[in-house]
Amino acid sequence: DRKLKVFSLSSNQELAKEVADHIGVPLGKSSVTSFSDGEIQINIEESIRGCDVYIIQSTSAPVNQHLMELLIMIDALMRASAATINVVMPYYGYARQDRKARAREPITAKLVADIIQEAGADRVITLDLHAPQIQGFFNIPVDQLVGVPILGDYWSEKNLEDVVIVSPDHGGVSRARQLAERLKAPIAIIDKRRPRPNVSEVMNIVGKVDGKTAILIDDMIDTAGTISLAAQALMENGAKEVYACCTHPVLSGPAIERINNSPIKELVVTNSIVLPKEKQIDKVVVLSVAPLISEAIIRVHEELSVSVLFD
Amino acid sequence: DRKLKVFSLSSNQELAKEVADHIGVPLGKSSVTSFSDGEIQINIEESIRGCDVYIIQSTSAPVNQHLMELLIMIDALMRASAATINVVMPYYGYARQDRKARAREPITAKLVADIIQEAGADRVITLDLHAPQIQGFFNIPVDQLVGVPILGDYWSEKNLEDVVIVSPDHGGVSRARQLAERLKAPIAIIDKRRPRPNVSEVMNIVGKVDGKTAILIDDMIDTAGTISLAAQALMENGAKEVYACCTHPVLSGPAIERINNSPIKELVVTNSIVLPKEKQIDKVVVLSVAPLISEAIIRVHEELSVSVLFD
Ligand SMILES: Nc1ncnc2c1ncn2[C@@H]1O[C@H](COP(=O)(O)O)[C@@H](O)[C@H]1O
Ligand SMILES: Nc1ncnc2c1ncn2[C@@H]1O[C@H](COP(=O)(O)O)[C@@H](O)[C@H]1O
Repeated sequence: DRKLKVFSLSSNQELAKEVADHIGVPLGKSSVTSFSDGEIQINIEESIRGCDVYIIQSTSAPVNQHLMELLIMIDALMRASAATINVVMPYYGYARQDRKARAREPITAKLVADIIQEAGADRVITLDLHAPQIQGFFNIPVDQLVGVPILGDYWSEKNLEDVVIVSPDHGGVSRARQLAERLKAPIAIIDKRRPRPNVSEVMNIVGKVDGKTAILIDDMIDTAGTISLAAQALMENGAKEVYACCTHPVLSGPAIERINNSPIKELVVTNSIVLPKEKQIDKVVVLSVAPLISEAIIRVHEELSVSVLFD
Repeated sequence: DRKLKVFSLSSNQELAKEVADHIGVPLGKSSVTSFSDGEIQINIEESIRGCDVYIIQSTSAPVNQHLMELLIMIDALMRASAATINVVMPYYGYARQDRKARAREPITAKLVADIIQEAGADRVITLDLHAPQIQGFFNIPVDQLVGVPILGDYWSEKNLEDVVIVSPDHGGVSRARQLAERLKAPIAIIDKRRPRPNVSEVMNIVGKVDGKTAILIDDMIDTAGTISLAAQALMENGAKEVYACCTHPVLSGPAIERINNSPIKELVVTNSIVLPKEKQIDKVVVLSVAPLISEAIIRVHEELSVSVLFD
């Protein structure tokens, strides 16, 4: 049996520690520092020859730094004769740049896949990709974990009454359906429409929300523009209260201010992206994906199917 | 005849403008911005279909940002049907990580070569690589330009008397010889030795410097530790005055302070790396590599040999 080793880079150190503890191995010894000129220096401080190595790194902000750390670590592990190099990316940065929406645009999500493979990764384990098609950008196995069960368990335990699950846009309807099925609740969809050019968007709500407790769900919340407008529209349409949840709390720019000022009572997220102190506001509840990731690593290591973790 | 287009990214915008002017083409229209979460967004604002495109970008600090900009730009150009994508990297970041000096180290200079190729580059034009072996990290043509002629012309015009060209370490002797030949001057070498463990290094000088005007030369100056100690040793060994030059002014951390406090009368560098305002001190003279790069681009475009530019 090959030895399993878990290494952390700098994006998610607590999560990596939790994962290692859950699996029952010590976290691999390594350090990530910068030379005086800002170039990344990585030291792997124990032998990994012949081991199955799992690297935990989200390519969250600072995305370019985190991505280069990951590539350099893969290169170092490959040259140090790791048996397999398994990249665990709870959050996959640049995922929204997954197609040419306009002429002469890059497809950076594909570039990221290419360079991770080129560096020497043998497998990727990730969580709630912005688009499932990104799996096809790789020519190595990609296990995509799903956050809905973790979020669903939280809402189940909270025991809210007369719930409706709301997708903030038409792109997120299947995610809303998954959560709704777990909670045996109906769904609603916010259908933004611009009635004429240069007229601001109207938030049509498809489905019944009047008198209900609404739970908004999205894969990621970035500047929180969509989610806070959606929450407002739900209240204006008679919702009793509004909650929100997502897997990836990007929360950049005005996000925290917008959430604070919105009618959202509670925002539930995962630790796929670390929230710095200033973003840990009262309204935000963080759930850990460590058990989910640990189980996936154990199953991959034992060469079992990960797909049972999807449900 | 295919059209030649020159694009700038964010590292060396003035140099790119100079190069485009020298070649006699307008600088390609594009923009590099960041989304709210720090992800890079690149827009190419004119058609490049069927063109030979030259991208000017040094991977100087912030190195990870500049490298990702370059990769994303290559991806966008490739998808927009450029005929050839030619990467002009006056400064090649991560070049010092070009070998495993210790166990389990990455070879980041090779990783950088791999991902630039993977993104879709057809050719690289660069200047004074830290080690010429880095050319072999690529499987596409690499034209390496040489800064010595530019530095040499400057010193020739300055008409200093009784000059000795000094290499600050044994790794830089052939560079010192090239400059010495152009100036018809002798060379000297600083041979750092640690007499016993835990005893500080002694600066032995190999060659005659007493009463002479010393010109130190290196490929890059980073924290300026080596060069300022070398200058001091030269003065202590009877040099009349000390000048210094290098191709790549990395100048990180304490560099500017050290140069200011050193006996170096003048430090001559090139614009392969842009010096921010606070590093533009009186002692530092910047020479432009725009004519050299422009000539290289013209020759590559006309499918002539670039190697004539080496001398
Ligand atoms: N980091 C980012 N922040 C905001 N928008 C982005 C980002 N990356 C890509 N996009 C844009 O978001 C759109 C895709 O988002 P979506 O429609 O949600 O898949 C594309 O038009 C992208 O240009
Ligand atoms: N950005 C950097 N700053 C300082 N030292 C570095 C940097 N990158 C690599 N090194 C180290 O510099 C050494 C190589 O430098 P050299 O002997 O001049 O080729 C190696 O031991 C590297 O670990």
